[in-house]
Amino acid sequence: MIKMVVLVKRRPDLDQRAFADYWIKRHAPLAAQMPGMRGYRINVARESQLDEGRAPWDGSAEIWFDDRASLDAGLASPEGRVAGDDVANFAERLEFLLTDETVILPRK
Amino acid sequence: MIKMVVLVKRRPDLDQRAFADYWIKRHAPLAAQMPGMRGYRINVARESQLDEGRAPWDGSAEIWFDDRASLDAGLASPEGRVAGDDVANFAERLEFLLTDETVILPRK
Repeated sequence: MIKMVVLVKRRPDLDQRAFADYWIKRHAPLAAQMPGMRGYRINVARESQLDEGRAPWDGSAEIWFDDRASLDAGLASPEGRVAGDDVANFAERLEFLLTDETVILPRK
Repeated sequence: MIKMVVLVKRRPDLDQRAFADYWIKRHAPLAAQMPGMRGYRINVARESQLDEGRAPWDGSAEIWFDDRASLDAGLASPEGRVAGDDVANFAERLEFLLTDETVILPRK
């Protein structure tokens, strides 16, 4: 399993609520159509990420695929391209990490 | 539930394997002692985060607490302070986001 962590900066013309609404209600259903996607979680930052030590991001996502080849195929699929094109509707900038996940303490 | 997303830059004198080993085997058991912690996942970046569009981080973590007060109390507890002091043994820099999580597609 590979887990892609995506850091997301919202479009400056959207407030945090509009950004979250679009991402969760409009973008996520498109992105979840990507073949091979095994899991998808969205983390929307609470108001004020401006304190010391806070990251300059408005949210992050986690997306699981079986392996790197499945991830690449999913992103390159027609569904992946539709989702990719839709990103500009709510986000100004993305960065991503390709990671291996270790669950230390299962969420209760 | 509140979910803290932590971005982690490794100590420059550690390679990625030594960084991951310390974090998962030495730091995580300390951090998991924090009272009130509901979940803890570690995402270690695969080699080469240097490609275009990749984030300049070597990993990220997700830590769940019931609410902001529980998070603050956990971090301020004796166990939280021990874990906080231990960060310098593997990480050079952290940034964090306080988020609300939405599960779009459960990990299968």
